[in-house]
Amino acid sequence: METATIVLFGATGDLAKRKIYPALYNLFVEQKLPQAFHIIGLGRRSLSDEAFQDSVAQSVARFSRREANDPELLNSFLSAFRYNVLDVGRKEDYAKLLQRIEQREQELAVQPNRMFYLSVAPEFFAAIAANIKESGLGSAAGWKRLLIEKPFGHNLQSARELNRQLSEAFSEDEIFRIDHYLGKPMVQKLGVLQQNNPVLDALWTSRYIANVQITANETVGVEERAAYYDRAGAVRDMFQNHMLQLLMMLAIHLPKNGTSEEVRLKKKRVMEALVPMSKHEVSGQVIRGQYAAGTVLGSSVPGYTSEPGIDALSVNDTFIAAKLQIDAPFWRGVPFYIRTGKRMKEKSTRIVVEFKAPLEQRAAAYEDNPAPNLLVFEMSPDEGITLQLNTRDPQREGEFKPIRLDFHSSREDLPEAYENLLHDAWLGNPTFFAHWDEVELSWQWVEPILQAFEENLVPLRLYPAGTYGPAESDALLAQDGYHWWFDAKDEPEAEEQGKPFAIQTNR
Amino acid sequence: METATIVLFGATGDLAKRKIYPALYNLFVEQKLPQAFHIIGLGRRSLSDEAFQDSVAQSVARFSRREANDPELLNSFLSAFRYNVLDVGRKEDYAKLLQRIEQREQELAVQPNRMFYLSVAPEFFAAIAANIKESGLGSAAGWKRLLIEKPFGHNLQSARELNRQLSEAFSEDEIFRIDHYLGKPMVQKLGVLQQNNPVLDALWTSRYIANVQITANETVGVEERAAYYDRAGAVRDMFQNHMLQLLMMLAIHLPKNGTSEEVRLKKKRVMEALVPMSKHEVSGQVIRGQYAAGTVLGSSVPGYTSEPGIDALSVNDTFIAAKLQIDAPFWRGVPFYIRTGKRMKEKSTRIVVEFKAPLEQRAAAYEDNPAPNLLVFEMSPDEGITLQLNTRDPQREGEFKPIRLDFHSSREDLPEAYENLLHDAWLGNPTFFAHWDEVELSWQWVEPILQAFEENLVPLRLYPAGTYGPAESDALLAQDGYHWWFDAKDEPEAEEQGKPFAIQTNR
Repeated sequence: METATIVLFGATGDLAKRKIYPALYNLFVEQKLPQAFHIIGLGRRSLSDEAFQDSVAQSVARFSRREANDPELLNSFLSAFRYNVLDVGRKEDYAKLLQRIEQREQELAVQPNRMFYLSVAPEFFAAIAANIKESGLGSAAGWKRLLIEKPFGHNLQSARELNRQLSEAFSEDEIFRIDHYLGKPMVQKLGVLQQNNPVLDALWTSRYIANVQITANETVGVEERAAYYDRAGAVRDMFQNHMLQLLMMLAIHLPKNGTSEEVRLKKKRVMEALVPMSKHEVSGQVIRGQYAAGTVLGSSVPGYTSEPGIDALSVNDTFIAAKLQIDAPFWRGVPFYIRTGKRMKEKSTRIVVEFKAPLEQRAAAYEDNPAPNLLVFEMSPDEGITLQLNTRDPQREGEFKPIRLDFHSSREDLPEAYENLLHDAWLGNPTFFAHWDEVELSWQWVEPILQAFEENLVPLRLYPAGTYGPAESDALLAQDGYHWWFDAKDEPEAEEQGKPFAIQTNR
Repeated sequence: METATIVLFGATGDLAKRKIYPALYNLFVEQKLPQAFHIIGLGRRSLSDEAFQDSVAQSVARFSRREANDPELLNSFLSAFRYNVLDVGRKEDYAKLLQRIEQREQELAVQPNRMFYLSVAPEFFAAIAANIKESGLGSAAGWKRLLIEKPFGHNLQSARELNRQLSEAFSEDEIFRIDHYLGKPMVQKLGVLQQNNPVLDALWTSRYIANVQITANETVGVEERAAYYDRAGAVRDMFQNHMLQLLMMLAIHLPKNGTSEEVRLKKKRVMEALVPMSKHEVSGQVIRGQYAAGTVLGSSVPGYTSEPGIDALSVNDTFIAAKLQIDAPFWRGVPFYIRTGKRMKEKSTRIVVEFKAPLEQRAAAYEDNPAPNLLVFEMSPDEGITLQLNTRDPQREGEFKPIRLDFHSSREDLPEAYENLLHDAWLGNPTFFAHWDEVELSWQWVEPILQAFEENLVPLRLYPAGTYGPAESDALLAQDGYHWWFDAKDEPEAEEQGKPFAIQTNR
């Protein structure tokens, strides 16, 4: 593993504290960082190195999945942290930064490889990239990489403009666009599972698959991000990036030992094959929702337009459900249903692959049909894989009973998404990052939705907080004869004990 | 459910105490017996009804899966039991029995349906059947049924002769041949699972299946049955009946809602398609084993020929492993490996379906291959279904890790085999009984093995008690490039914690 300097913009920010420091700490404990690991944090306010290290220690204590109960180890970790004050627009600050980096590189005998992590608001991306180039920060003898967080643009045009600006300072293979969903262990395994399991590979076609359901439900509301969120909405915040990435990761067919270049190519092909909509077609395939007041996990919560910082007349989307079609041999005729929302009944991210019923069953609607077979990939709150089969007790004829074959990862074993992503970025492995092609094609596909919402061509459906979104989301599937799986709508609590999701038979 | 009289021959015997009374009790508790349930027990020694009822109460207390902690319920159950002394050869005893049955039928207003359960040594089957007929016991206005236990014959010829004799008193559809493996809940579900799960149905062909492994291992030795067992051996005691029944139940392809007549026909077809051997071919496909002294579950045990009642020079088989081929479209080229033995390392009955590796993997033997996919049906000691898949941590390239999707039935829910079988016999449902065609074809297929063993054309392989049988059993699979799954040969105990079987990757 090559030594490098991490240059972290936004070092006093929320993301750094909640995710980046804990991730680095866990990589450090697992010895997945080079020996001479070091990092320079940057922020607007001035801060001593010691005060910075203290705040890193606090964030590790509070957010790391591992307890930091070895003071020696923790101190060794903290000693890697230095702080510089930096105003993103002041060229002198970049010059000072360069000095400091070069000084540390010499002290620690670290190669002049530099990883610039932009954990700041996206409006600063272009300026920072330009200044990195101009100040000579990026022109050392080693490699340079740019790590950036979403949102990557606000629409197709602004994304293209941003990419053009970044491209002046960094080449595509130096840009690592973080989509933290791609860092989740189960998402990273989707391709592995399909490639290395003949029984899954055999079933991975429209011959056997009826539909695919991708859900990312949150129980939280808009939280502290009102200003950003009210401009973004669920489409920009979740759908254009995370949800379409999940779709790509599930839909790609990879050869064994596929390279990251192949992954990139296949993902691009999926996006190219995604059947486009005109803005006038959106209302037939997309449900636009916004939460009203309701009860989430036992507490009363206000509606979206009553949240602090949100315009009382806002028609912003906090929920979206969509039906997508991939016009490619393996997926033709298999609808992909995607939904994501805030203030939903329960937190869960999962992909459900629903298999077709046998031919004779589809032909004649028996009263006594078994439930469809399902393959479920759970990403959150727990990670697991479940295959739902049917059985029937021959001693009690007529009663089909779904049974579940379950695999659950133990929580301790699981790295956080940011650990995987930081590790890969360090190794220069772009497999689980969002490539420009995908980002561009995603914005392109989403553009008519944004337009239709803006022109109010799609009615805004209110849903009470603590539900599964507007009824129209159910109707979207019902018109094809399907329903969202595992929505515990009318299940008494008692029956859910010990289940990752509630049992629901065919209806 | 029609009322009937159970007439139980061998009412003071071991099977009755261990299996039949507890099964009847559990059916009674679950109200799966008709209201006017009653039974007449028969035995050689004289016994009062009360003493008989006491012994039934004891057997329920000792062997029932349910605690008999409701005295009223237990008494109501026991009141159904009456006892008659009967010497199977004395015609007067049958006449008295008929009187008693008719008297009870009147008392209880029970229809003249009679279920004759022969829980006695097989040498008495013919005589009893003849006397039932001659005495008029079987000629009432209702139905009559004959339930018999294995062994059904000692070889093809004696089985045919026995069947001819029984046929003089009972027609084929009145004869219910008990093979208690067919009563096990998981065995009964094999067909249901395949029929009602498109994902299994899609995989149920030689295109995807590499081989099938059927194992029934016992830790016990010959126990009290020396005289019988030393004449029977593993071939007659287990292989000809239980093991071939498991093979048939796995291999049949049933249409949805297949009738018992279809099941019968399909099982017959499997047996007809079983590629026959000449006695000179047996040594290439069959391993004949006998246990030597060793250690089972921590205790030293003697070798087979040192067991009480066994000839010191006995060459009887206590272990058999065989490779079988089914010459039918779905199974051509898929070897079925079957093994069963006494004094094995662990008790387990299971079927493992091993899937083929992807084509490119078969073509080039990579160092870094994932393990094959497996579908495991466990019948004992616990019931469950497991699908073994492969995963690989993308963060640690090169390490494939098998993961298991598990379903386990809870023990309380599970009826004992005899409950299912008695219930089906009462309903007149022959699905899970051994039909004459199967029995005859099984003996026919096994006949060359018996001859080859008798003429010593197959070497007897000694294996230490507490192992997985002779090394030649492993070699039988190794020559095809396979191995027995889940033999915990060199596994440290620690790794097996909480696992239904030990993890073993591809080797």
